[in-house]
Order: sequence, then structure tokens, then C-alpha cells
Amino acid sequence: MHFIDLNCDLGESYGSYKIGNDKEVLKHISSANIACGYHAGDHNVMMETVYLAKKHNVKIGAHPGFPDIPGFGRREMNLSPKEIYNLVLYQIGALAAITQVQGVKLVHVKPHGALYNMASASRSIAEAIAQAVTDFDSRLILFGLSGSELIQAGKAKGLVTADEVFVDRTYQPNGTLTSRSEQNSMIHDRKFAVNRMIRMVKEGKVTAADGTDIKIKADTICVHGDEPAALDLILALKDAFTKEEILIRKCWSE
Amino acid sequence: MHFIDLNCDLGESYGSYKIGNDKEVLKHISSANIACGYHAGDHNVMMETVYLAKKHNVKIGAHPGFPDIPGFGRREMNLSPKEIYNLVLYQIGALAAITQVQGVKLVHVKPHGALYNMASASRSIAEAIAQAVTDFDSRLILFGLSGSELIQAGKAKGLVTADEVFVDRTYQPNGTLTSRSEQNSMIHDRKFAVNRMIRMVKEGKVTAADGTDIKIKADTICVHGDEPAALDLILALKDAFTKEEILIRKCWSE
Amino acid sequence: MHFIDLNCDLGESYGSYKIGNDKEVLKHISSANIACGYHAGDHNVMMETVYLAKKHNVKIGAHPGFPDIPGFGRREMNLSPKEIYNLVLYQIGALAAITQVQGVKLVHVKPHGALYNMASASRSIAEAIAQAVTDFDSRLILFGLSGSELIQAGKAKGLVTADEVFVDRTYQPNGTLTSRSEQNSMIHDRKFAVNRMIRMVKEGKVTAADGTDIKIKADTICVHGDEPAALDLILALKDAFTKEEILIRKCWSE
Amino acid sequence: MHFIDLNCDLGESYGSYKIGNDKEVLKHISSANIACGYHAGDHNVMMETVYLAKKHNVKIGAHPGFPDIPGFGRREMNLSPKEIYNLVLYQIGALAAITQVQGVKLVHVKPHGALYNMASASRSIAEAIAQAVTDFDSRLILFGLSGSELIQAGKAKGLVTADEVFVDRTYQPNGTLTSRSEQNSMIHDRKFAVNRMIRMVKEGKVTAADGTDIKIKADTICVHGDEPAALDLILALKDAFTKEEILIRKCWSE
Repeated sequence: MHFIDLNCDLGESYGSYKIGNDKEVLKHISSANIACGYHAGDHNVMMETVYLAKKHNVKIGAHPGFPDIPGFGRREMNLSPKEIYNLVLYQIGALAAITQVQGVKLVHVKPHGALYNMASASRSIAEAIAQAVTDFDSRLILFGLSGSELIQAGKAKGLVTADEVFVDRTYQPNGTLTSRSEQNSMIHDRKFAVNRMIRMVKEGKVTAADGTDIKIKADTICVHGDEPAALDLILALKDAFTKEEILIRKCWSE
Repeated sequence: MHFIDLNCDLGESYGSYKIGNDKEVLKHISSANIACGYHAGDHNVMMETVYLAKKHNVKIGAHPGFPDIPGFGRREMNLSPKEIYNLVLYQIGALAAITQVQGVKLVHVKPHGALYNMASASRSIAEAIAQAVTDFDSRLILFGLSGSELIQAGKAKGLVTADEVFVDRTYQPNGTLTSRSEQNSMIHDRKFAVNRMIRMVKEGKVTAADGTDIKIKADTICVHGDEPAALDLILALKDAFTKEEILIRKCWSE
Repeated sequence: MHFIDLNCDLGESYGSYKIGNDKEVLKHISSANIACGYHAGDHNVMMETVYLAKKHNVKIGAHPGFPDIPGFGRREMNLSPKEIYNLVLYQIGALAAITQVQGVKLVHVKPHGALYNMASASRSIAEAIAQAVTDFDSRLILFGLSGSELIQAGKAKGLVTADEVFVDRTYQPNGTLTSRSEQNSMIHDRKFAVNRMIRMVKEGKVTAADGTDIKIKADTICVHGDEPAALDLILALKDAFTKEEILIRKCWSE
Repeated sequence: MHFIDLNCDLGESYGSYKIGNDKEVLKHISSANIACGYHAGDHNVMMETVYLAKKHNVKIGAHPGFPDIPGFGRREMNLSPKEIYNLVLYQIGALAAITQVQGVKLVHVKPHGALYNMASASRSIAEAIAQAVTDFDSRLILFGLSGSELIQAGKAKGLVTADEVFVDRTYQPNGTLTSRSEQNSMIHDRKFAVNRMIRMVKEGKVTAADGTDIKIKADTICVHGDEPAALDLILALKDAFTKEEILIRKCWSE
């Protein structure tokens, strides 16, 4: 039997603006990364999303991002590690208050968008995030790109980490994601994508964009909830995983 | 010996915009109400203000407000009690994370500006705030206008409350503040203001705007930190209080 | 032959948040009220929406609102007439720059949401808006609730005005809309709604909520573009109007 | 007789947050760059600042920046040239409406902060800005770093441009500003700074950071209004310029 966590970014609506398909997606995933009001979400959406995740017994994580609603946290901001520490802490705290009053546990932290990408490559940003998580609650699990600086920074602080892999993105020989500006960065063949996931989970290997096999650690798979096809992809993954005796649930010890 | 708490709104700077005189004011007050990023303040300012308050051994409180930086939280917003519960909780949680990593206690909550005023008069808003405080941490002290709906809602939830009085505002016979639109709402004579405070603390009485004496409970005095004369007023109060054997410190049992 | 303008609020998307069905709606209406970045929309959305409106030969109007993206401009803000003058002017100017570079005319101004409602009832707010429109360009048409303070203020400034009626709302005997908090405020029967519109256009009359007939001036009909059924309603109106020899186009002389 | 324009960023207050010393500075400068609500300023501040500039007969320019109040427009944002075109146009339009109702002319455009810096080095960003200015009103003067990509892009579009120099920054041999991260980037000796300005204006030369003399075109000098010493520096410049028969006024033909 193999185990794999399936995570999705949720609670990304904002005021009158609705995004995603949270209610359906929550039926199938094991971890929800909940936006904390900086790049998406607001206090009302957070309260509702925590309620829904709890109802479906999905693990709840904070999904802190850059303070940039119009850019959805996808625009790089050149902030100091100290400011990144502060903004991650602020957002975790805000969500933690909301999980606390609903009597449910905050389990993990996964940075969002440009912050996630910058933390994958920059050790100082990675350390700022890992330090904020550690200082707030050292039992929180830190999600990051598999093998990235963020994972390493988390481990160095003594955090339990979850190496994250992407269903629909190709990998470079060094284990980084192929940049979206490259032609072959995305995988559009669902069957191919699903089989690749099975191999990652069972063998810890993936074929990189240049055809070579590389090692990759897969603790949790990211699926994107705001894309219309998200639900279909999730169902295809679930179906294939069942046949392969891969169980969707967290695969780390807390 | 009499005791009185002296509180001030602090941490109201925002990004490149600086406001107030926090470093000086913190030397003289006993409680700091720290803005939480909704009407003023941001994650950096909050971190720095908690650090300064801790250094001066000043009690720290959350100062949640309406989400309205350009209006400084002074514009009424017609929000549901549910949304007010959510936004108060969000802001308390964000500040609590910051006090926690600095190893200092969050002691009280005082709503800001238009939220404070609306909570003084509306029981449903008062209850939403009191409920958020109770659910997050029932040991927090709730600050509100002396004798107001907010104080009563806090007591009904079993919270310790602090009745707040204002140095520079006149009172109506029913104990409410004279509206700022009235000519006689403000007190500009410092000596008169200070003596009035001494009477409130020692006798629990104040002369209302119509000349009649009314009862008033004074647990904490609000001084405004963003006004240039704030420091002078604070020093005048301290001086007078020392002569009258009134000690500036919290006057409630936690 | 009768003429009636059909207007719709468009360009309400914001950053990554998409709202409405602008491309389809623009095929059928005669006037587009374009959000100006304060309550919805942004510089990119505005540029795109003006392009689309121009392509479909739909008249373009500015749709200024309160500065409140999370509340979608639907929350009342207690601002001074002077500030309302300023914020309306700012938003008209921003959109006018965008129409200008696309070589298309800015035709009208219609305030949004809470600002529209407040301007219907408050003469000072109505005057602030009418003055901003007049000072910027006195040839602009001012849209407002039929017979409201806004229409009267516009006329007093010498503006051409367009009396607006609503398909799906009931009227009080005094010509105001029945408050949404009342049970009978909305009309859900489409056939009834359409027939009522025909009578408004042809006879200038409507049956109020109490069953009495009242006079009503209908220059332009508002349909809501962000509701899923908007398109169906528009098509039903068009169909009925064609049979009744009512032509959808502006009915004022510029 | 020599002529030089003296410009300052003004109108940078925001809601309750006050910044700068606009009333004093306006007595001494010839061009005001007015913030347009994206990185600083708001509709009220813009209206008031235009009023003050008009009163002191100071030329008015739009000062568009990135949409980032908390970062004061000083944080780089990786936006497409198309989006930069849109946001510059929006801001110019908003300010133009405000100058128009006050019966005063909009004379120039100068991008702010990170947008200014990026436009100095990136031709595509420079072109987007120059195009927005040209499309809105080709008689507007485009301010940019002396000899930069922005100046060149403006000239290529046929705009009148103003080469801007800085009193307190050192230059590299290639004419760019020494990065603020370098030790010798700032000039703290006022007398030295003033004399350097005189030489720039009269001889079109400056000694670069490596000691070599380079050619530099100086049409307008930037002084920073939000620094406490700004007024002193302006007065020192005026005094020295008077002795040297350099007149502070615009030096381009419209």
C-alpha cells in the first residue's frame, strides 16, 4: 500500500467575486490550502472554507501569499526576508484564529504563487518562511516544491516537510519545474500525466523534459481548483490510484 | 490608593506613511491598542509596535477596525454581525501570532473608530465582537465605552470588561458621549479635563453637558496618540495623578 | 414607433476575478455602464470593455462607485458631497482617457450601487454627482432612478437626463423602488415583467405594489449583467419589443 | 541667462495619512508631479494639490506609479507593456479631469519610483509609457532620467521631453545613476551638490563617480519633497542659481 496526499488551493473567492469549485473539490482531496486574505480570500471566505473543509474531514493548511489581490499573488514582489517573515506570520495567525474557533486543527502551511516560486529558489526567502512557521507552531507541516530550498530550509529548522509534485508540469534534469515560458512546460495528456504520478509515488522517479530519469520525492500532489477541468483530473487520479492501491491521505507522521 | 489604566491607539503607521509618536507615548501609558492592518498598521508595523510595547512593559491589546485604510476606520460600514465577528476574529488572530512569537501576552481587545461607536449603541454588533473575543480567548479583557452596549455584551458573555472614559469629550446625561457635531463636544481646557478625570477615578462621577452630575465607571482612560498634543496631555495627567495618589496601571483582575 | 434605451453594468471583472457575460450581453443592449476601478473593474478591464462596446456600437458610460472592491460598491459610505464630487470626477476622467485613445465617445454617467441609491434620495449627494458631470462635460447624459433626486439635480444643472426603470423590481405609490428587504420587492414572473415594461414605455404607467397605477418616465431600462439569467431576460425583452414596435436605442437628443 | 526647471513629487498624502510639505515647496518650484492615487495620493488630495499648484502658478504634471500604496510605488512589479500603457493612461486621465474642472493645464508626465527606474532601462516599458502619453495628448512633456530609454522612446514618438537630473545622486561614466546599494551613490555635501548642478546647467557636464567628466543634459532638476531637508536644499539651489543668473522655469518650448 502506498500513500499520497492530494492538496488544492481553496477559499480564493473575494467579496462578491467567486472563484473555484470548493464544495466539489473538497469531496476528493486530503489537504486544503486556504487563502488568507492577502492575495485572495477574505475573513468571510476563510470562515466558510474552514467550515467546509472540516465537514469533509480535509486537513487544513494556511496558504499565505504576497499582499496583491489584483495580481492574485502571482507577481513577484522584492521584499526583505524580515517582511516575508512578518507577512507569513500575520496570515497564519489570522487563519489559526478561524480554525481555533471552529475546533479544528491547522495542519500545514504552503506559500502561494510568486512567494512559493521565490521560496523554491531563494534560501533567504525560504528561511524566512520556515522560521515564521517554526516560531508560530513547530508542529506545522511545511509544503514546498519537492527538493527545493523551501523544503531544505524547513528541514534545517526541524520542521516536518511535505515534498510537493505537480500533475501537469514537466521537470528539468535538476528537479526544478520547466519554466512556463518554455513550450514543453505543461502536460496536456491526462493519461500520461496520471501514469507519471503513479510512477512518482511508487518508484520516486520521473522522466525529465530531456528524456532522462530523475529521482523525485512525492509526499503531496498539487491540483489546481480554479481550473474548470480540475475536478475531472482529480477523479481520474483517484480512479487510477485506487487500482494501483495508492491511498489518498497524508503520508507524513505528525 | 486608586488605580487607572491609561490606553492609547498605537501602531497606526502604514507602509511608507508614518503616524503618531509611539516611542514616546509608550513610556507613559499602561495599555497599547495595536492596529491590525484593516484600518491602519501592517504586518511590519505590528511586529515593531509589539516589540516596543513589550520593551516598555505596556499591556498589549488588539485594535480591530473596519477594512478601510483610506478612511482610517472612521467611516461607518453597514456589515452583518456575522461579518463583524469574522473580521474581528481575523484581526485578533493576526496580532496574536505576532505577540506569540515575541513571547508576550495579548491582554485586551478594543474595537476602533466607527466599529467602536457602532458597538457602543448596537447590541447585535456588540454581541458579535464579544462573541469573537470569547471564542478566541475568554481571558481577554474587552474595552468599550463606559456603560455601553459593548460592555454589557461582554459581561453577558462572561468576559472581564474595562469601562473606558475620554479625557477630552463631554458626556450627555445618559452617559453617552456628546456627538462631535455638537459645539460643546470637546474639552479644550487641559486643567479642567485633568480635574474631571480625577473625579471620575476617585468618585465615579462626572458633570454632564447639561450641568447635572452623573455616575460613570472609569477603568481605563483613552488618550489619542496621533495628535501632537497627546504627549503633553499624558504628562499632565501623570503629574496630577501622582499628587492624587492615583496609580496608572490596569485596574481589573485577570 | 417607440424608443427605449437598454443599459447594463459591464466591465466588472477585477484582476484574476472574472464576472459577467460582457461579450454576449453587448450584442443586445444600447448602453454600457463601465466600472471605473473603484468598486469593480481595473485599467485592463476598462480598456477591453471599451473595445468590446465600441465593436458592438454600444454607447459607453462611466459607472462610478464607492471605493470598495470587496463590497462591490454596495455598502453605503458616509462621505461628504465634496468627496463624492471628487471621486466621481476621478473615475469619469480615468474612463474618458480610455475612450479617447480608442476614438470613441463617452456618452453618459450612471452612479453604481450604494452611490446610486444614496443619490436617488439625497439632494446633496445628487448635486455633487451632477456638478461633477457638468464640470467635466456638460454634454454627458446623466442616468438616474426615474423621477429621483439625481434626475432632478441633473436637470437643475442643465444636463440631459435619462430616467431609468428596472425590469425586476416593484414600485411604491410614490415612484420609489420597493426596498429589497420587503417580500414583494422582486418580480420573478418574466412574462409579467416584460409586459410591465411595454406599458411603461408606451403609456408611461406602472402598477405600484399597492395595486394603484402611477405615472413613470422610462428612458432607459436597467438589466443586470452579472446574473446568469440576464441574457435570457434581455432576449425576452428584445423579442417582445420587436412585436410591439419598440426600438432599443437611446431616446434622448444629445 | 540660463533656464532650468525645478520639479518635485507632490500630493503624496493618502486619506488620513499626511506626507510632505507641499504648501511650502510649491512657493519655490516650477513643476509639480502630482500622485494619481495608485502609489500615493487620492481624489481628494489630487483636487487640493492641483488647487495649490495653480495658486502658485506651478506647472502641473501627472505622476503615475505602480498600483501599490503600501509599497509607495517603490517595489518593482513585473507587468506587461500593455498593462503599463493602461495604468499610465488611467492615471493621466484621472488627473486630467481634475485639472480640467479647475481650468488649469496638464503640462507633463513623469513616472514614479520603480516605474521610473524600470522605464529608464527598459525600452519596451519606456515605449508603453511614451505611447500612452502620446495617445492621450501629444503636447504633454515627458520627463525621464537624462539620456535614458524613456527620453529616447519619447523622442521617437515625437514628444517634447525633459531630461531630468538629480541633485543628490552620483552618476556612472555611462550616465546612469549609481545604484543606491553602492556606498558612494548619495551626495551629502550640499555645497558640492549645488555647484555640481550649476555646472550641469551651464556646461552640460558632470563628474562621474570614477572621476571622469561626462556630458549630461539637464532640463529639469528633481528635488524630493517628502524629506525634511527638502526645503533647505531648494532654498540653497535658488540662492546659488540667482547669483549665477540661472532662472528657475521650464526650459522647453511647448
